[in-house]
Amino acid sequence: MTNDLQEIHEECGVFGVFGVANAASLSYYGLHALQHRGQEAAGIVCVDENGQFSRVKGEGLVTEVFNVKNLSTLSGSSAIAHVRYATAGGGGLDNVQPFLFHHHKGNFALCHNGNLVNSNEIKYYLEERGSIFQSTSDTELLAHLVRSSRMRGDNFHDDPVHPLLGPIRSALNMIEGAFAFLVLTPDALYVMRDKYGLRPLSLGKLNGGYVVSSETCALETIGADFIRDVEPGEVLVIDAEGLHSCKYSAFNHHYMCAMEYVYFARPDSDIEGINVHAYRKQSGRILYKESPVEADIVVGVPDSSLSAAMGYSEESGIPYEMGLIKNKYIGRTFIQPTQDLREKGVRMKLSAVRTIVKGKKVVMIDDSIVRGTTSRRIVKLLREAGATEVHVRIASPPYAHPCYYGVDTATYEELISSQLSVEELCMKIGADSLHFLSHKGLYESGNRCELCTACFSGNYPTSLYDNECKKC
Amino acid sequence: MTNDLQEIHEECGVFGVFGVANAASLSYYGLHALQHRGQEAAGIVCVDENGQFSRVKGEGLVTEVFNVKNLSTLSGSSAIAHVRYATAGGGGLDNVQPFLFHHHKGNFALCHNGNLVNSNEIKYYLEERGSIFQSTSDTELLAHLVRSSRMRGDNFHDDPVHPLLGPIRSALNMIEGAFAFLVLTPDALYVMRDKYGLRPLSLGKLNGGYVVSSETCALETIGADFIRDVEPGEVLVIDAEGLHSCKYSAFNHHYMCAMEYVYFARPDSDIEGINVHAYRKQSGRILYKESPVEADIVVGVPDSSLSAAMGYSEESGIPYEMGLIKNKYIGRTFIQPTQDLREKGVRMKLSAVRTIVKGKKVVMIDDSIVRGTTSRRIVKLLREAGATEVHVRIASPPYAHPCYYGVDTATYEELISSQLSVEELCMKIGADSLHFLSHKGLYESGNRCELCTACFSGNYPTSLYDNECKKC
Amino acid sequence: MTNDLQEIHEECGVFGVFGVANAASLSYYGLHALQHRGQEAAGIVCVDENGQFSRVKGEGLVTEVFNVKNLSTLSGSSAIAHVRYATAGGGGLDNVQPFLFHHHKGNFALCHNGNLVNSNEIKYYLEERGSIFQSTSDTELLAHLVRSSRMRGDNFHDDPVHPLLGPIRSALNMIEGAFAFLVLTPDALYVMRDKYGLRPLSLGKLNGGYVVSSETCALETIGADFIRDVEPGEVLVIDAEGLHSCKYSAFNHHYMCAMEYVYFARPDSDIEGINVHAYRKQSGRILYKESPVEADIVVGVPDSSLSAAMGYSEESGIPYEMGLIKNKYIGRTFIQPTQDLREKGVRMKLSAVRTIVKGKKVVMIDDSIVRGTTSRRIVKLLREAGATEVHVRIASPPYAHPCYYGVDTATYEELISSQLSVEELCMKIGADSLHFLSHKGLYESGNRCELCTACFSGNYPTSLYDNECKKC
Amino acid sequence: MTNDLQEIHEECGVFGVFGVANAASLSYYGLHALQHRGQEAAGIVCVDENGQFSRVKGEGLVTEVFNVKNLSTLSGSSAIAHVRYATAGGGGLDNVQPFLFHHHKGNFALCHNGNLVNSNEIKYYLEERGSIFQSTSDTELLAHLVRSSRMRGDNFHDDPVHPLLGPIRSALNMIEGAFAFLVLTPDALYVMRDKYGLRPLSLGKLNGGYVVSSETCALETIGADFIRDVEPGEVLVIDAEGLHSCKYSAFNHHYMCAMEYVYFARPDSDIEGINVHAYRKQSGRILYKESPVEADIVVGVPDSSLSAAMGYSEESGIPYEMGLIKNKYIGRTFIQPTQDLREKGVRMKLSAVRTIVKGKKVVMIDDSIVRGTTSRRIVKLLREAGATEVHVRIASPPYAHPCYYGVDTATYEELISSQLSVEELCMKIGADSLHFLSHKGLYESGNRCELCTACFSGNYPTSLYDNECKKC
Repeated sequence: MTNDLQEIHEECGVFGVFGVANAASLSYYGLHALQHRGQEAAGIVCVDENGQFSRVKGEGLVTEVFNVKNLSTLSGSSAIAHVRYATAGGGGLDNVQPFLFHHHKGNFALCHNGNLVNSNEIKYYLEERGSIFQSTSDTELLAHLVRSSRMRGDNFHDDPVHPLLGPIRSALNMIEGAFAFLVLTPDALYVMRDKYGLRPLSLGKLNGGYVVSSETCALETIGADFIRDVEPGEVLVIDAEGLHSCKYSAFNHHYMCAMEYVYFARPDSDIEGINVHAYRKQSGRILYKESPVEADIVVGVPDSSLSAAMGYSEESGIPYEMGLIKNKYIGRTFIQPTQDLREKGVRMKLSAVRTIVKGKKVVMIDDSIVRGTTSRRIVKLLREAGATEVHVRIASPPYAHPCYYGVDTATYEELISSQLSVEELCMKIGADSLHFLSHKGLYESGNRCELCTACFSGNYPTSLYDNECKKC
Repeated sequence: MTNDLQEIHEECGVFGVFGVANAASLSYYGLHALQHRGQEAAGIVCVDENGQFSRVKGEGLVTEVFNVKNLSTLSGSSAIAHVRYATAGGGGLDNVQPFLFHHHKGNFALCHNGNLVNSNEIKYYLEERGSIFQSTSDTELLAHLVRSSRMRGDNFHDDPVHPLLGPIRSALNMIEGAFAFLVLTPDALYVMRDKYGLRPLSLGKLNGGYVVSSETCALETIGADFIRDVEPGEVLVIDAEGLHSCKYSAFNHHYMCAMEYVYFARPDSDIEGINVHAYRKQSGRILYKESPVEADIVVGVPDSSLSAAMGYSEESGIPYEMGLIKNKYIGRTFIQPTQDLREKGVRMKLSAVRTIVKGKKVVMIDDSIVRGTTSRRIVKLLREAGATEVHVRIASPPYAHPCYYGVDTATYEELISSQLSVEELCMKIGADSLHFLSHKGLYESGNRCELCTACFSGNYPTSLYDNECKKC
Repeated sequence: MTNDLQEIHEECGVFGVFGVANAASLSYYGLHALQHRGQEAAGIVCVDENGQFSRVKGEGLVTEVFNVKNLSTLSGSSAIAHVRYATAGGGGLDNVQPFLFHHHKGNFALCHNGNLVNSNEIKYYLEERGSIFQSTSDTELLAHLVRSSRMRGDNFHDDPVHPLLGPIRSALNMIEGAFAFLVLTPDALYVMRDKYGLRPLSLGKLNGGYVVSSETCALETIGADFIRDVEPGEVLVIDAEGLHSCKYSAFNHHYMCAMEYVYFARPDSDIEGINVHAYRKQSGRILYKESPVEADIVVGVPDSSLSAAMGYSEESGIPYEMGLIKNKYIGRTFIQPTQDLREKGVRMKLSAVRTIVKGKKVVMIDDSIVRGTTSRRIVKLLREAGATEVHVRIASPPYAHPCYYGVDTATYEELISSQLSVEELCMKIGADSLHFLSHKGLYESGNRCELCTACFSGNYPTSLYDNECKKC
Repeated sequence: MTNDLQEIHEECGVFGVFGVANAASLSYYGLHALQHRGQEAAGIVCVDENGQFSRVKGEGLVTEVFNVKNLSTLSGSSAIAHVRYATAGGGGLDNVQPFLFHHHKGNFALCHNGNLVNSNEIKYYLEERGSIFQSTSDTELLAHLVRSSRMRGDNFHDDPVHPLLGPIRSALNMIEGAFAFLVLTPDALYVMRDKYGLRPLSLGKLNGGYVVSSETCALETIGADFIRDVEPGEVLVIDAEGLHSCKYSAFNHHYMCAMEYVYFARPDSDIEGINVHAYRKQSGRILYKESPVEADIVVGVPDSSLSAAMGYSEESGIPYEMGLIKNKYIGRTFIQPTQDLREKGVRMKLSAVRTIVKGKKVVMIDDSIVRGTTSRRIVKLLREAGATEVHVRIASPPYAHPCYYGVDTATYEELISSQLSVEELCMKIGADSLHFLSHKGLYESGNRCELCTACFSGNYPTSLYDNECKKC
């Protein structure tokens, strides 16, 4: 499934440091741990004690964008940093975050994970008032909303100590969607998370300063101690005095994106107190209980489905085997095989291990099915390698509704589960049997009572604005 | 002198194409011909028949920024392009032009050669009205002024066919300084030159379309036919219907920057009808008449002073010799010699030819003296190579006043001619005699009655705004 | 252990194609599948139907060395290719294989996996006869031995059809050690494996031509059908007529390097008929039987120990958990943390998952211990993450003797198991208990009666020449 | 002519340092000054006080091959360095000099400017004795000849202090052609020039050590004092004791390549006591005396013909004008215009200055004509720019015979002057008149009694071996 989802979804990772020496280096290692959340572009903005901002950003992996030379141009003890998944919005380098804005009242930098659902409305509103944009990113919108806040008659009064706090709260009340935003000024780091709690953001402590990160694995990597998650609707201001917290909205839910548990996050991260690997393994156990099968071996589709496959194996007693291998050196500089070579049998990314699957009844565990083409290909690989039966078990419900909190380009037509019944899909991917995890199992795997399951259920926690019509 | 001036001055080159196939390739060759005007960064924006903009920009020479791959991503028959001299404004890539702006009423791109004198005032005006800036470039200011024009109550009415014409004329009336601006929309190329005529801009015709360029050498390079210069204060709109011309101001002079003739422009360019090489050669002839000397050979400082040196040689009958050699492969990737190596005699850029100057009385011709350090170094080089006398003749008057139409960082302290008399300067650079071209000679070299000679005379054609106080 | 072994061992991968269209592209994908065997350098040499050789080689990963442009310069239907582990021999690019030799009797290319034990003797012999060397590689030695064969009075007569066959057999009889050699001429691909069978080499069939590879995973990747392993002591000539096989020596054993099963090879490869993952899983099962322990979870050190850990888990019934995470994006362009940052807690490559190991008794499975420093670090990581007990089980016997068939720089001093008893080592790495797989278990895991276990037992299958004295 | 000659000729530049701190940096600046002799590849080998060799080499300009990082890996006070013109011999990086050889009796490095005429014979001789070659360069031949010298029964006895001196003298006696060779060992720098004196090589002194260079301009650049030229047939050994000189042959002439004066060398270099600019200027004066013309302006083809044009102008009194401009930023990364664009008028490299040549009778001075295509193009450029007459004067005799001392691929067919009479050629290039400098003028320009004028006269100073038959 991995590939399908990669093509339609945009996830990003944000990372911030306040008041810790070597903020740029720490950001580099932090971004590295978040690399799985975005492999298309990366950037770091630092600010030093004199209020001087410095920035390095570029397209490519963290190790491609940064080198000893350009990293050494970043100085100061505060920084924000970003990895981006896809080229959504286009525009190349202009859309690479963090953004840096110059203003006679003080420069500031900004980066963001998530997706706004009313960005078209906001853009129109701002352009009508004279704004012009150099990118197509939601992040630039927020900067304009913040700077134009005084022209709006809302009730967010200026805080003399944190002059951006009022404008930021005003701006956040105008936007709708999923986000984790970081704003860096020479004096403070502003950290905010949407009021629905759709995107993860965690806070840690390190050497007397603070660190924020989309996932806890980055805190662990740099040796920071986890403090707590940033709360839905919270605006956290970190400055020399410490932490200051307030809310931008009274609304408050924990509709964490279920796909973070299912696919996006790194297995060693904890999201809202639940370890991702543990969640996935539990989902595999529940999956077996819901849809058992007689088979010789359990095989997971690497890498995101391995935990669920282990859970299925342990619950069922069917041995877990490494029947599929992922070639891990594939990156953006990899030369894709031509159609001609692919047809002649050149297989990259995934291969089935003949010696292991030959003559076996296989349970193949995957985290999800989006378009179905990948599943079909893997079933075929397993059969060609000699599997006598292939039973597919998916550790999440059918993905049948577009997500507007990641990338808004997905349509119902692209989602195979909105087009076919499970039986039809089973036939299409060529499996002997096919079962999905139930919605109930999704919640139970993490003992959660709230989740965003919009892509499975069609229940969107927010208004959808101009996406609304796409629903029909 | 070359090096001195390089350090304090910022010149740029602009190039535009409308309605000619392969606009991107033509821009590449055009920028190449303008490379001497800016070696720090380059960029091209194209727009195709569907209104899609594409852009490539980067730091470095034209041959470093563009390659077959990225050039092939630029499609369409219209383009604007830019080479930039120095990193004035800092900010690296963010300041590299052309800029590209997204707007629901239509995207547009913009680039610019010159310098505004009231940019601080304009920036403050715009930020107070909600604008925020991602660069420190004058070009971004113009974009904001254009987009905010409706909020100003001026008398520039909308032109339904060229919707940007009114806003552009409104914006141009708010800025003061030297400029040649290009604005590209999907339908038209807007071309404008400041009302003082400080910066050159020429118009040509090619294969049924139009080309504009800071210098005519770029027209020649791509095989375009020169039509005429863009007039001071003119706003030229080029669209599918052809050329449309109007003025943004009734003020109208031809205060062409004298340094364009003396130093900036390529010798094969014609500026306002006068060939640059011919101008320089004539200035050398006048220089001899004004300050003759008995000597064995005439030596010009390469490359910009060679024409003047030839004129001096022909008028005087003293043979012109290649007594100084410039190493032409020096670029930004060149590793500068350490102080230690320089002291041990490693000489890059310029060397004197011992066999030629040994035992000779030398007239050394240079185009100008800014800080005096380069002249002193060259005189020393010539003496070390055995010259018995070194008489320095400068093909322009003493450079004694800062220029605010290039880079505004120059101060009186940096300009040696504002500190020392000609006699003192002669002693400082170690010459046997020193003479400068007269102001009269400057005008006569080109048979001109108007020129901007602010850097020589202190007579600035514009108000200076916040630079005013620096004059005292 | 991974890191320890990486530092002292040199493994390489060889790949060859004869008579298949797109030999260069196939080699690219083949090398990709062998990337785990060598990440420091890569090269491909092709020969076309006109006998023209072309080559691309460089330092770095396969995806770094090759691009569409340079790959397109390689044409022909035959190729040999190489990935190299470390910079053994130094000399940078000069040592990157394949080598290409020009000779008036015909050019030829050569590459090699393994290590000769009598290379110093051979080098002296050749230099005394006028040879000079541009690299420090064993591969260049073989080329000189082949070309000088006529000067030796041995009994290898010229084969008129395969003119290099006699010289190659003569040359192979002079060298001693572990090797898999490929020699490419315009007409034939010569494939040879040492008479001890120390290094793997497999033969496959594809589209009417042949493919050879250090591991079968590369055959699978390009869709080739496995035929058989190349035999110890075999010289295989592949030409337009098909396969021709002979032996260069009557000696014939299958002392396959045990570490290929334990650590080097990819789990989906089959070596001499035994799947590597299956071998490792079986070794984990035997390891449990030999040294059971009461614990809450089994954790494998990624990536090479995961199969053994699963075997241990299945045999013991103790759940297998993902308690250690390896950051997979680390490559050569990665900026290593400074000592200062490492001390402050920045952890790259491996991290322990606190939520999983906290409060647990952990069985940590690793494939081997070389210097002990990595094991000690991992035990510490687990304890810091809250493990209450850490029991270390190693899926191979103590590594106590230098290997001269990989890199000959290892010394007894570097091998912790030659210095300390198991009890002392247990204390040194800070484990609660430590057990190694028995020698018997090593053979049983693969049902093999022959293996090279020199690094465990000190029983070297070959003479050691000048390495002999190092034994004492 | 410039382009024509570039395509058929291979010149290189060598540079060496012995006993001066920062040998690598000095070599970098030295190569830089020799960059005009070879723009395709560059390399430096250093040796330090411990006998450790280090090397950096690559394809491209000096500024492209070297950077601060790789230059810092080169340590020691002795070095040899090389710039190479073309990819003669092919094979890419393998042919980039200097070469570095490993030998148990001592490593050594070697580089070379020139071309051997009996390389095929030598190669066969060596291969028959067991040598194999990794490049197609003459330089590798010399290394093998040196190392195999003991097997030859010649009378060059071993010098115990300079063990390579005997073998080098033996080797030099076997080769025939044009060369300047440098051999670097940990203890000494061996410097040798062919006995005909075909290629230049000069010796200088710097900070107690020595420097050698193909041209004196590199000595000047690094601040070294010129001592003398290396003599034809001389073998100079530079070691800690100072200079040791001997001859490898009793033959001794000064057949310096005339094209060094006419085209190759930098105008500020002195070759065998004659300044190149002065030579060229004098050739221009003689050219006028031999073939005067009535005209309005003299125009030289940049860059190599400017000195001759000035001489012609001074002798004739016809003003010298900058009627042709060369775009100096063109390098290997430049994207050549497509045929389509060239036909539409895109002109790179050279353009004519319309304002200067329009309505004028032009004398166009070029240094030579090889194929005639460039001359024809320039005449056309001048006419299109409005020249009423174009009289071509060439500052050397007709180039009618292949040179075997540069690149041996040139054939009579390629040389237009071996095919057409001067009158026919005049018509072909479209000039109003055409005259060449006489053979006598060639010698007189430098007051020389010996020169190699083989390309003009067909009198080759050496035997031609297998090139012999090409003469007919």
